[in-house]
Amino acid sequence: MSETPLLLTPGPLTTDPAVRQAMLKDWGSRDAAFIALTAELRSRLVQLVKGEATHVAAPIQGSGTYILEAAIGSLVGAADKLLVLANGAYGERMAAIAGRLGRAVEVLRFGEDRPVAAGAVADALKDASITHVALVHCETTTGILNPCEAIADVVAKAGPTLILDAMSSFGALPIDLSRTKIGAVLASSNKCLEGAPGVAFAIVERALLAMSAGRGASLSLDLAAQWQGFEANGQWRFTPPVQVVAALVEALRLLEREGGPAARLRRYQDNLDTLIAGATAVGLELYLEPSLQAPIIATFRAPSDRPFDFDAFYQALLRRGFIIYPGKLTRVETFRIGCIGAVHPADFERLGAVLGPALDEASVRS
Amino acid sequence: MSETPLLLTPGPLTTDPAVRQAMLKDWGSRDAAFIALTAELRSRLVQLVKGEATHVAAPIQGSGTYILEAAIGSLVGAADKLLVLANGAYGERMAAIAGRLGRAVEVLRFGEDRPVAAGAVADALKDASITHVALVHCETTTGILNPCEAIADVVAKAGPTLILDAMSSFGALPIDLSRTKIGAVLASSNKCLEGAPGVAFAIVERALLAMSAGRGASLSLDLAAQWQGFEANGQWRFTPPVQVVAALVEALRLLEREGGPAARLRRYQDNLDTLIAGATAVGLELYLEPSLQAPIIATFRAPSDRPFDFDAFYQALLRRGFIIYPGKLTRVETFRIGCIGAVHPADFERLGAVLGPALDEASVRS
Repeated sequence: MSETPLLLTPGPLTTDPAVRQAMLKDWGSRDAAFIALTAELRSRLVQLVKGEATHVAAPIQGSGTYILEAAIGSLVGAADKLLVLANGAYGERMAAIAGRLGRAVEVLRFGEDRPVAAGAVADALKDASITHVALVHCETTTGILNPCEAIADVVAKAGPTLILDAMSSFGALPIDLSRTKIGAVLASSNKCLEGAPGVAFAIVERALLAMSAGRGASLSLDLAAQWQGFEANGQWRFTPPVQVVAALVEALRLLEREGGPAARLRRYQDNLDTLIAGATAVGLELYLEPSLQAPIIATFRAPSDRPFDFDAFYQALLRRGFIIYPGKLTRVETFRIGCIGAVHPADFERLGAVLGPALDEASVRS
Repeated sequence: MSETPLLLTPGPLTTDPAVRQAMLKDWGSRDAAFIALTAELRSRLVQLVKGEATHVAAPIQGSGTYILEAAIGSLVGAADKLLVLANGAYGERMAAIAGRLGRAVEVLRFGEDRPVAAGAVADALKDASITHVALVHCETTTGILNPCEAIADVVAKAGPTLILDAMSSFGALPIDLSRTKIGAVLASSNKCLEGAPGVAFAIVERALLAMSAGRGASLSLDLAAQWQGFEANGQWRFTPPVQVVAALVEALRLLEREGGPAARLRRYQDNLDTLIAGATAVGLELYLEPSLQAPIIATFRAPSDRPFDFDAFYQALLRRGFIIYPGKLTRVETFRIGCIGAVHPADFERLGAVLGPALDEASVRS
């Protein structure tokens, strides 16, 4: 096996060797040993966001998009109305999912370089027909951090249920369900938790789930039925990706050993700081105002003072052992570099040392 | 890591060490190396059932149930009517999925110990409003083999589109799309292909998929959109379980090395024959008439001449290194033992040697 490049992307990410080695075993998915592993998974997920008193974990097979659809389809009823707060592609995706499912949906849009503003949300919630609000915690489109707690307070005061897409924040950025009112927190195995991809999950208020049984047209993505399955016998309703589950449990144990989300956030912040220092040294600029940039994935403007060919830049960095990510903005040429995964400041120092030569190749080749 | 028991179940199964070791690498899901892996996956899947001229492969994230729902939701339209041929729980599940999706559905039922009968299907297809027919190739409820080619001929003559749930047959039992008219063949990574669980797939007639774009209420389980994503840039629309994909490609290479589906079927048949010999020697009886029993998973009647506690039997076999499966019939007490996975006749000889002592423990303890 050739040397694997470091994945500086929004995921799948570089994982710890111990996480990958946890996949070397076969499991009977209805055997007691795997039932115990599933129980540990569900319990650790809820504990990470202090939801033990109120919330339960409902993991499902599949990618992050699946859990967004499962949550919207299961929690938002046919007579409800969802307000999506959008400042990027992932907010728009939630709106698209809701529309496709036939749910009433409104979108409150903000610029891609601006956080969602609590005041505007309060205004929008004067519409008493809105029953649910969806927010993306960290919008991977740009890497912008939205003010989850301020929005949650506004939504709680107005009454609707808040659904938080915490896909790229869960496990690093602080979420405290004992203090912040959030109906459902949605995330997946392969971002800040640093597991392998293949499992997504919702941390949902028990009362909300109980109300939503049988709602929605999907058997596979029925969150309440999935939860009831776990409660009934500890098993997944349908064949789980056993190796991915084992990898995720190992990743959660490693997260605890690292010191929990706060320690992980500090490492990611160090990664980002090191990345920005190296990028600034070769003349690259952050797209966002730095205080808005979460330490998850950073968006950089393409150089404006010389030609720039993203594909050549990508290949030049790949040859040096790094995989980066294209930009997702339509009006500004950008690229993205992730700070998450089993990567450390020393990796970003090595990256900083090769950004200059890679930029030179990207400008010569264009 | 303690010694892993052999999994004699309908899956997840015991896999080859090379399959598990293929999971030891991280992949950038939008990088050229993973795009090439995905192309190899899709191409090998179509070739296995000789569909190159007519069919394409649309893999999705998730379990087998997801691909059933994706296929029914995407291929059966709101004005269509699905006839499900059912002789077990998996036929009933397809009917439940269709009903939940709001599709018109009828169920033609057969006894769980009887194969679906082509003559009865021909009669049912006199109803010209039926546009699609769904059949389970090997019904895991009992392990019965349904006569796929005879049914396909009847359906082709009448005109509807046949959807084949080949979950537990694909890769071992013969399916030849160049000779048998089947609109969509559905299966998953972790049965006769002997991969890790986490990916399911449809092998669909290209013309059918093209017609079905945008149909269905699910964004995640939209088969046509998934296919169009692969065609557009070789990438999965949403984060794929990269390690599971790598394991499946390795499993497909091993299948080729073994000699393809015909060779694999011979091994499974040897497994079943060895299993039946050992079981018969201690007085256990097959539930099905032997000619109907596919070499996938065998259903045995619980002993009638002495007390029998399935849980004690299960634990007694687990202590000896084997995981078996409970029965799924409501009216007859049975249990199931799978013949598939990286297991060989010698494993079933070892099993045969411990069935007697395990039965004794199961009868003492009850």
